[in-house]
Amino acid sequence: MSPSRSAEPRWLDDHEQAAWRAYLDMQGRLMTQLTRDMQEQGGLSLPDFTVLVQLSEHPGGRMRILELARALQWEKSRLSHQLTRMERRGLLERSGCGTDRRGAFIVLTAEGRTAVERAAPAHVESVRRYLFDGLSPELVDSWAAVSRHVVDRLREITEFVPDCAENMAAQAPEGSCG
Amino acid sequence: MSPSRSAEPRWLDDHEQAAWRAYLDMQGRLMTQLTRDMQEQGGLSLPDFTVLVQLSEHPGGRMRILELARALQWEKSRLSHQLTRMERRGLLERSGCGTDRRGAFIVLTAEGRTAVERAAPAHVESVRRYLFDGLSPELVDSWAAVSRHVVDRLREITEFVPDCAENMAAQAPEGSCG
Repeated sequence: MSPSRSAEPRWLDDHEQAAWRAYLDMQGRLMTQLTRDMQEQGGLSLPDFTVLVQLSEHPGGRMRILELARALQWEKSRLSHQLTRMERRGLLERSGCGTDRRGAFIVLTAEGRTAVERAAPAHVESVRRYLFDGLSPELVDSWAAVSRHVVDRLREITEFVPDCAENMAAQAPEGSCG
Repeated sequence: MSPSRSAEPRWLDDHEQAAWRAYLDMQGRLMTQLTRDMQEQGGLSLPDFTVLVQLSEHPGGRMRILELARALQWEKSRLSHQLTRMERRGLLERSGCGTDRRGAFIVLTAEGRTAVERAAPAHVESVRRYLFDGLSPELVDSWAAVSRHVVDRLREITEFVPDCAENMAAQAPEGSCG
């Protein structure tokens, strides 16, 4: 038992509470608006776009499921459902799941690459418009520093369990192996 | 047509790109970890907790669906499914949807209040541990300023469409009216 878990909770002071609420409000509004913008533009969802961007930045548009799961840090069931839907829509394919199912790859299709290239300019314009326009470089720096602080703390404290992704590879339907 | 939409996209520079990626990484990891922590503690999901906190801070634990939809800025289908699941689990009730369905209320049950009070201390401890511990007050200030900047920009540029919430009220199943 960790003492910090069993002791009296260290409630947030008014200052921290206000910052946390502002973050949650920002995050909810920003993601909702980016989702709306993207759907109006071309019918991709924000999770579709996120997966496609990851794949498009890897050689041949290929990533192992395990690697993708680590990069996105999504829960197993969320990633599994997402990939199945995207595969049905022809945005990606599964391949290489022969004897070693842990080695299954997700591969960007030509259609997937076209979709991400078509969606990117308007998405970047939205991000700039809602976030970066009017922010000083100093504020951008501080904002990035807080994000990196949280990522570093989470990396120290927690660990990603690769079993999730391995199970997911094993769940690929038989017919989907290339 | 807005000129900024039709012109060459203003791509992010390396600095902005790094900040945006760090934010997405932080957000994904933080929400995944807070979700895991909450489920380990007591079986609530993070969206459950978010709805319960909103209700618990209103007199009598009551809010109009429209008001809740505005506060959370969630998409119609997301809030509707969430409320239905929570109602089934006895965490909240719908009431007052007689003649004016737009006036439907969501009400926290005693079970819902117990659940949020039980989950809050560990959740706050998690937020402190992953985020605020080790951050200077100046960084917390800057971080909050960026969040408020984005919320202000989104309030200026976009508007929440109340039709969503009114439709949602109208979708309340007949049997759920108190």
